[in-house]
Amino acid sequence: MSTRLEAERKGSPSLSARELAYVLHKSKALVEKSERLEQLLVRDPVFHHETMNYQTRAEQYKRALQMAARVEIIARRNRLSEADTEHLRTIFQSITSCSAATLLHTLMFVKNLGLLFTDEQQTQWMDMAKQWRMIGCYAQTELGHGSNVRGLETTATYIRATDEFEIHSPTLTSMKWWPGALARTANFGVVYARLLLCGKDYGVHSFMVQLRDLETHDAMPGVTLGDVGPKIGFNNVDNGYCSFHRVRLPRQNMAMRFAAVTREGKYVKNSNVSEQVLYFTMLQTRIAFIRSVGIGLAKTCTIAIRYSAVRQQGYDANNPSSKEELSVLDYQTQQYRLFPLLATAYAILLTGNRMDQFSAALLEQIKCGNINLLTVGHVMSCGLKVRATDLATAGIETARRACGGHGFLLSSGIPTVSGDILQTVTTEGDNLVLSIQTARALLKILALYKKTGVVPEPMAFLSNIDKPQYATHRTMQQWLEPHNYVAAFEQRFLFQLRLYAEKISTESSVAAGLQNNSLDTLKLTDSYGSLVVVKAFAEALEAPSIVSSESTPPPAVLNILRLLCHLFALTQLEASAGEFMESGCVSPSEMPSIRANIEKLLALIRPHAVTLADGFNFSDHTLNSTLGRYDGNVYEALFASAQHDPLNHSSDKVVLYEFLRPIRDEMLQSRL
Amino acid sequence: MSTRLEAERKGSPSLSARELAYVLHKSKALVEKSERLEQLLVRDPVFHHETMNYQTRAEQYKRALQMAARVEIIARRNRLSEADTEHLRTIFQSITSCSAATLLHTLMFVKNLGLLFTDEQQTQWMDMAKQWRMIGCYAQTELGHGSNVRGLETTATYIRATDEFEIHSPTLTSMKWWPGALARTANFGVVYARLLLCGKDYGVHSFMVQLRDLETHDAMPGVTLGDVGPKIGFNNVDNGYCSFHRVRLPRQNMAMRFAAVTREGKYVKNSNVSEQVLYFTMLQTRIAFIRSVGIGLAKTCTIAIRYSAVRQQGYDANNPSSKEELSVLDYQTQQYRLFPLLATAYAILLTGNRMDQFSAALLEQIKCGNINLLTVGHVMSCGLKVRATDLATAGIETARRACGGHGFLLSSGIPTVSGDILQTVTTEGDNLVLSIQTARALLKILALYKKTGVVPEPMAFLSNIDKPQYATHRTMQQWLEPHNYVAAFEQRFLFQLRLYAEKISTESSVAAGLQNNSLDTLKLTDSYGSLVVVKAFAEALEAPSIVSSESTPPPAVLNILRLLCHLFALTQLEASAGEFMESGCVSPSEMPSIRANIEKLLALIRPHAVTLADGFNFSDHTLNSTLGRYDGNVYEALFASAQHDPLNHSSDKVVLYEFLRPIRDEMLQSRL
Repeated sequence: MSTRLEAERKGSPSLSARELAYVLHKSKALVEKSERLEQLLVRDPVFHHETMNYQTRAEQYKRALQMAARVEIIARRNRLSEADTEHLRTIFQSITSCSAATLLHTLMFVKNLGLLFTDEQQTQWMDMAKQWRMIGCYAQTELGHGSNVRGLETTATYIRATDEFEIHSPTLTSMKWWPGALARTANFGVVYARLLLCGKDYGVHSFMVQLRDLETHDAMPGVTLGDVGPKIGFNNVDNGYCSFHRVRLPRQNMAMRFAAVTREGKYVKNSNVSEQVLYFTMLQTRIAFIRSVGIGLAKTCTIAIRYSAVRQQGYDANNPSSKEELSVLDYQTQQYRLFPLLATAYAILLTGNRMDQFSAALLEQIKCGNINLLTVGHVMSCGLKVRATDLATAGIETARRACGGHGFLLSSGIPTVSGDILQTVTTEGDNLVLSIQTARALLKILALYKKTGVVPEPMAFLSNIDKPQYATHRTMQQWLEPHNYVAAFEQRFLFQLRLYAEKISTESSVAAGLQNNSLDTLKLTDSYGSLVVVKAFAEALEAPSIVSSESTPPPAVLNILRLLCHLFALTQLEASAGEFMESGCVSPSEMPSIRANIEKLLALIRPHAVTLADGFNFSDHTLNSTLGRYDGNVYEALFASAQHDPLNHSSDKVVLYEFLRPIRDEMLQSRL
Repeated sequence: MSTRLEAERKGSPSLSARELAYVLHKSKALVEKSERLEQLLVRDPVFHHETMNYQTRAEQYKRALQMAARVEIIARRNRLSEADTEHLRTIFQSITSCSAATLLHTLMFVKNLGLLFTDEQQTQWMDMAKQWRMIGCYAQTELGHGSNVRGLETTATYIRATDEFEIHSPTLTSMKWWPGALARTANFGVVYARLLLCGKDYGVHSFMVQLRDLETHDAMPGVTLGDVGPKIGFNNVDNGYCSFHRVRLPRQNMAMRFAAVTREGKYVKNSNVSEQVLYFTMLQTRIAFIRSVGIGLAKTCTIAIRYSAVRQQGYDANNPSSKEELSVLDYQTQQYRLFPLLATAYAILLTGNRMDQFSAALLEQIKCGNINLLTVGHVMSCGLKVRATDLATAGIETARRACGGHGFLLSSGIPTVSGDILQTVTTEGDNLVLSIQTARALLKILALYKKTGVVPEPMAFLSNIDKPQYATHRTMQQWLEPHNYVAAFEQRFLFQLRLYAEKISTESSVAAGLQNNSLDTLKLTDSYGSLVVVKAFAEALEAPSIVSSESTPPPAVLNILRLLCHLFALTQLEASAGEFMESGCVSPSEMPSIRANIEKLLALIRPHAVTLADGFNFSDHTLNSTLGRYDGNVYEALFASAQHDPLNHSSDKVVLYEFLRPIRDEMLQSRL
């Protein structure tokens, strides 16, 4: 154990990392269960990490599949419930920092099978899918078409004579491109294609298409499959391409829950089934991003903070006689880099907990036919997906840089997390596209409020929209009162929303307004997302039960959470200070107090930084980082890790014989 | 040729990409020479890229060495001058987006040999080095010690009895760690170690240490060598570790230009040689970063802009009857993402040109014994290194995201550039450390001005430090006048500098002040760096000859440069609007005009965006990007690139036999 980390932990005796974990991860019971489940995996050598940074893509892919398969077998052998099996899969994702191709099958394909297909269709396939005889993928995106689903080109033409659909890729750009598990793993795919009946285009629908022979794993006739090539991250997953040359399938393979095609080729909408459930699923997916990117940020924070406590550099100018170098974490600049990230990770995780509760409540309501909160759920999930993924991806890179050169090494563990999280700003709705959706939904809620005077509870602040903004000069102390800074975030947002609504109202249509003022949507979505997170964090301090079943955390925990909440809010405010000033709710002369508070908070948090990182409760196995080890033996770990590099077990004489000698000869020759 | 890019280029008929290139790359003659030299490499199959994204590290390393050796041979065979050979090496770096280990030899080791060692010592080694019999590296950084050179632990103890130094690594943390070319390539190293004479520590000095046998390439006795492991980028280079166990070398192997040790073990400073030259070399290295990160940003801008012009997505809400999808580049949000980056790349390259001129003039002055401008050169090179690398690294990631999912693919070319450029925020002075150096130097120049009333020309604005800041309300048009926005950048900076100087003056020492107020140094350095860049860009419009020998570019070029300059300045201002308001030089009520200008500039630049990207003058070979091709045949290129993936030429039946079958069997079994 590095004496430095020991000293850090001793320096924060009243704060319990475990109690922090119970709040961050929803409950004591859940933390303990996660630990038990993690142990099931860690004990198994298949999950060991030693060689992962040195593997080729083919090896990475194989290892990931091996692990994913192992997860299922372990779940079976330990007779885990379905819920615990799903939990185990999530833990597998967390400890490997990367999906496996078959997680798309277990987490997404099976869910979509249940969602898009009729009960009859499910009878045909669900057992196969659960027994891994059918391995599915979800083939929507095309080479030339992403965010705009309406633009997809793959066609599904009904052939009445044979009662079949013909799936076809008419152009290069219509080739399916990106779906995970498509290249090598899946033998079936839910394929999105334009439904054509008697030459009429009914828009995009889903079809169950067999991609490979179940016995030989060969591509089916007319199906061309391949891998899209190496990526920044996610190299475990075989994101693939696929083109169809007039592939026939039975009419019954269309996903018929929401609409069907009859034997006669007639299109029939199923009016008994609400598409709300479908929207709700997308909403759930976006909400799941919040905690998952929070976890990624938390991992890199843990690594960077522990390393910064161990790393020593430079001498203390306030104590010139001291010969020992300072810990890097003692520098204000390093604290300013890392503690706001720590606060951000706490903020995102607590907001994620809150949204998980909200989403569960929403599901209950929808089941009872009450869809009042669906628009609010939509706007919250879009706005938070954008904000959380933006904050987390930027934060992960900041944490990486805070580790200096060593953060550039894969063995630091940060590049793996980064490669895993970076895609979240693009997938499941590119953040730019979701910004526009957020703005559209905000306008809708605002219009409803203006019309009815009613506003759903989570958006209650909307009723202040026409109140004037004001900047009373708050004292330093007042800036540490959550109701004051939450009010500032509200006022900035409402100011922007009001101007935006006015601008849009002068346009020829809302759609044209959104397109012509899309710059404003970026700011609006950011400021909305920031407000929701700051508010959620502040409210969690008042009523911890909304984020964790540990409703009365110890005072030391609440106290430090309060400091983190202040720091998060004030650094977020500082980063967009101009917008706050422009909206009239913060005056330029208040900035010195705000900054003085930030400096004070950094100093107050400093003694607890390592414990706060410990509170995320990552095992060394999950962090898989030379720099982030619990024991702080960073340098031993760096050296040991390099010993696994195959380069260090191969001859380097190639340099001499293949390069240096020929050059020397050339040089000597050309002198003649 | 994609009809879209053709149409884009036709849409900007008056603007010549070539004329832009002449300004960006200093002169027509230089552009043409670069093209000629690039052809020497591109013609050679060794430099082809087809398989690079699929190589293991060992293969990447080998390929890079192969190319680097080829560069030398081509230079010889074409009888290039020494200057042209160096130019060819730079082009090699640019077309591969990555260094090779031996570039550290040719670009750095040979230079240091000439700088640190006496003429006598050079006679012994220079020929060997130039003929690649000696391949050197530069071994400073240790496992536990980076920025603080004073903390290095490796020792060099003088052994009088044998007239030798004994180089030793006393601890794990003293192991050399990171030096490029150390792991497998170099046979000699300039090693930094603490000089110990009769038990007295004389601080860190350099020593020429033989690392490997010249005949066998085996490590010398007492020397342990290895590779530090895979990294985010720079995997071509064998960054290595090395520990010394009591390695003896002749006393004459100490670098003795600045100080020597006599046969008797006496330390003698060489008072004839000024260490200014040494400082100047570090300054030159930092200045070289400016253009090099500008080139990286320019590459990714070119890729993202061409791809965004080709990519179509969504329908035009202003023209609902149109069936064709819009080009992504037609969206305001995409323009807002990319055009400020385009402007930033132009700004950085033009500032780099200016600094190259400044550095050449400085060298002439130093040769004449005039070191008046050295402090100014120091502060400019530090501040600009920080600002340029921060802007470029952030911009490259923004450009990557602007390519949506495809930007995640290595074949997009962006991850390679990113991996190459990301390290620039850390190497040659971590940006945090350089911020403090910038602040320290600014205080020094300010103090001198206060004392003497004299301020060197490039810092003339310092004389306004005590003038009050004011925010007269400028009209929209006035915000497009460079003297107005340059004044705002000056005033913000001077406001911060004045407050900072006041704060520091209350501290016990400048060193303590710097340490205790390091948060302020970040802002100060940013605002100083931004000022220098905005000023350099604006001044280049007035007097193009300070950035390019094309002193009278055509009006179309000057006009578009003016728009880019406005856009750069105003978006930079917007990003830190709070600081401008706090300093009193911009009023919150001016923001709507500033933003309206930004929106207007985006629209004005739109028709020329592709030509502006063409102006960077990258060949398809250099970009090496499926998305950034000159012909715009993006989708064909993506598909073709995937065909090179070895995964697409190997059997995928492993999935069936190794994973799916066993799981299925397990599932069936456990049901029994």
